[in-house]
Amino acid sequence: MSKGLTSREEDYSQWYNELVGKADMAEHSAVRGCMVIKPYGYAIWENMQAALDKMFKDTGHSNAYFPLFIPKSFFSKEASHVEGFATECAVVTHYRLKNDGNGNIIVDEDAKLEEELIVRPTSETIIWNTYKGWIQSYRDLPILVNQWANVVRWEMRTRLFLRTAEFLWQEGHTAHASSQEAIEETERMLEVYADFAENWMALPVVRGKKTANERFAGALDTYCIEALMQDGKALQAGTSHFLGQNFAKAFDVKFTSKEGKLDYVWATSWGVSTRLIGALIMAHSDDSGLILPPKLAPIQVVIVPIYRSDEELDKISAIAKELAAELKLKNISVKYDDRDTLRPGFKFAEYEMKGVPVRLAIGGRDLENGTIEIARRDTKEKQTISRDGLVLHIEELLVDIQNSIFKKALNFREENTREANSYEEFKELLDTKAGFISAHWDGTPETEKQIKDETKATIRCIPLNNKLENGHCIVTGNPSTQRVLFARAY
Amino acid sequence: MSKGLTSREEDYSQWYNELVGKADMAEHSAVRGCMVIKPYGYAIWENMQAALDKMFKDTGHSNAYFPLFIPKSFFSKEASHVEGFATECAVVTHYRLKNDGNGNIIVDEDAKLEEELIVRPTSETIIWNTYKGWIQSYRDLPILVNQWANVVRWEMRTRLFLRTAEFLWQEGHTAHASSQEAIEETERMLEVYADFAENWMALPVVRGKKTANERFAGALDTYCIEALMQDGKALQAGTSHFLGQNFAKAFDVKFTSKEGKLDYVWATSWGVSTRLIGALIMAHSDDSGLILPPKLAPIQVVIVPIYRSDEELDKISAIAKELAAELKLKNISVKYDDRDTLRPGFKFAEYEMKGVPVRLAIGGRDLENGTIEIARRDTKEKQTISRDGLVLHIEELLVDIQNSIFKKALNFREENTREANSYEEFKELLDTKAGFISAHWDGTPETEKQIKDETKATIRCIPLNNKLENGHCIVTGNPSTQRVLFARAY
Repeated sequence: MSKGLTSREEDYSQWYNELVGKADMAEHSAVRGCMVIKPYGYAIWENMQAALDKMFKDTGHSNAYFPLFIPKSFFSKEASHVEGFATECAVVTHYRLKNDGNGNIIVDEDAKLEEELIVRPTSETIIWNTYKGWIQSYRDLPILVNQWANVVRWEMRTRLFLRTAEFLWQEGHTAHASSQEAIEETERMLEVYADFAENWMALPVVRGKKTANERFAGALDTYCIEALMQDGKALQAGTSHFLGQNFAKAFDVKFTSKEGKLDYVWATSWGVSTRLIGALIMAHSDDSGLILPPKLAPIQVVIVPIYRSDEELDKISAIAKELAAELKLKNISVKYDDRDTLRPGFKFAEYEMKGVPVRLAIGGRDLENGTIEIARRDTKEKQTISRDGLVLHIEELLVDIQNSIFKKALNFREENTREANSYEEFKELLDTKAGFISAHWDGTPETEKQIKDETKATIRCIPLNNKLENGHCIVTGNPSTQRVLFARAY
Repeated sequence: MSKGLTSREEDYSQWYNELVGKADMAEHSAVRGCMVIKPYGYAIWENMQAALDKMFKDTGHSNAYFPLFIPKSFFSKEASHVEGFATECAVVTHYRLKNDGNGNIIVDEDAKLEEELIVRPTSETIIWNTYKGWIQSYRDLPILVNQWANVVRWEMRTRLFLRTAEFLWQEGHTAHASSQEAIEETERMLEVYADFAENWMALPVVRGKKTANERFAGALDTYCIEALMQDGKALQAGTSHFLGQNFAKAFDVKFTSKEGKLDYVWATSWGVSTRLIGALIMAHSDDSGLILPPKLAPIQVVIVPIYRSDEELDKISAIAKELAAELKLKNISVKYDDRDTLRPGFKFAEYEMKGVPVRLAIGGRDLENGTIEIARRDTKEKQTISRDGLVLHIEELLVDIQNSIFKKALNFREENTREANSYEEFKELLDTKAGFISAHWDGTPETEKQIKDETKATIRCIPLNNKLENGHCIVTGNPSTQRVLFARAY
């Protein structure tokens, strides 16, 4: 807290890294690529988990837990799946250490596994191997299961929350008796994610489908929600996959239908991760620190006393504690910070850095006047108001902040979504303004790859409910019936 | 559900294994020693987590998350710690797979780690390496952090919930400025565990300290809660460790005290795991299935309709749904099971197997009489009562069941805690009655080991607030000032 942040303007990436540290969210660990999520960052994850978990349960899902380890042979069973994950797998080969006699701890070569185990990068294979034992008939379907877990994908270039070798996530894995039912589930969960992003994270998202190139390894269709960060780069915030019968075939999972016919089971999987915390930070925060939407803020209201004597502090504390109790009754999380070793200005800066949505200050004059100073983090507006009716005022203010943050992010996205009608225009927009670029594309993986290689922009998605529009691919000039959304992305 | 369980009398171990399967709690996975926790079993874990998490937060702790992997060198830093865990460590040695060109997926030898990584069996080392960066002064203390996580200890003989290679747990890791404060924390968390065991799990526990032989690897003192299972074997249900300055010294974590003196930081750690689910099952359940304490039951009340026509079902459903809504308002979790493919008797057996505390049945005669049949799982008592005042009756019944289960388990433990005053008596009690045996011991590790080798009984704990009593060690005859508690244990 000793000094401010590098500004976003100056160096967005540096701003992000400093902010994650100074807001006490997370730090790099001694293990390459693995992060430590500190209590303040983890509290945001807990709030996300609680909201998402309720949404999953409200849509009929239960939680379960599957093994951390996956036998190597399971990976080979679904060809495109193993191809997608093989290059980033942590492999367990031994199950014992020993002392070499000279006081050194070494791996015991007598304890080598017959078959290596992979630390799960995702759990389709171990779960579908398990589902084989659970499913015989249509009566056993659907299976609607979710798992909260850690996963490992060996990344060489890591950034806290955005890309780490180990991360926390949830992965839903469902099994269905028909293709249609599985597709409906895939779409339902995409909508749950979009709802969560917009109404909890205050993060507007585009709902869409990935192109074949960008699909999950093993999926027939990958749906996604895409958000725009303040530096004009896109971030994939959640994915929902229609897996068809690929994993059922790989693990031989069949069911007898109502009509007595034997068929392979239909599957979906869907996940969001601690990456969302990175999105939350990058979408809303400013050069003074985090800006958190009230619905996910670990502390929604902080009260800081400003006093010249112990006697004055006592009087302020009495008011603060009564107020805190009233707010708690309304399920508003509140902290009264009466640490006597720090000056109010220092505390103000700390809670700005940590993105606490509402700050209250009570000083000597407020005691006399029955007032309180109230400051909102997002706009930094301050007001001195009467303590009468304060709780109701704060309730409304928290709603207003939640909505304002969303609207601000939505305006930003709208201002930064532009159409390009030629490759020249496309490249210029990318380099000068970034943001989403809506453009015609001929539908081939080759053109998509060429654009990626030449500009680092990828097709973020083909938006759902896209309007049809005849046009020509910006690269090849071939006919196209709809625009797709490009961006450089995290 | 097709047939009943082996009885406890016949084969307790077999009874347990069958019950875990038939109650849909968990199953073995394709990965040696790792279990799949099924939705019904996981729902119990979620209820345990929610209750414990609140207790941790009410005592000032926050959650955080530390890496799954621990560099091998970290383990070597605390000598007794590595000795305790080295023989059961899963070791990651590579970070990539590849296709060998013949379609086989093999480990890529070009992707060998410079230093092997251990999948955490417990996190003291990685956490104290992290705390080094968090602690400079007494102002940074205490650190009161908990982590919910998976851990791996390579076990050769596994049993669902009781002993598995991977299990879920929480591990608290706290840092303090004085020995006294750390000891107080150790004791406080033991009391939290005892409170949880007794008031949520309905499981009476003995609070005590482990002998030096049985301490956690790296601890100066290990406190524990010990419970008695229905077969007379003991089960360690939770431990809280006073670690002294061992880990601070191993990772060089010092702080400046208020007086300006530099000293090593004092530590505690404490944990409970999914093993508690095994304890819950074994302590209360009977030959018809699970008996769950209402406070942890995923379904507290089930309603089963008994009908001869669709018209009758409609009337019953109307009543059942209204009742379910009223119960939900009281935060009672309720399921209305109107599946039309199964007979009521089948459903009754299923909910008995799953330990649902209260079962309601509504039939044709109940429609006429305004009554309902209510059955409690623990005693299997049934009553037909008026629907008026039913919600209040159920609320009281759930409290009564919770208390009854606890009292039954407490009576069982009291009846099965016996004094032995000679080694002969000790061995006879062990072989004929099992249970806890309270006996004098000379305080030496050698005698303790001899007893263990000869009888398989271990000292479960030296009870806290043990009364002093002069006596003689049952083995050596040497003088002793207090009895300690022995048992064969899980």
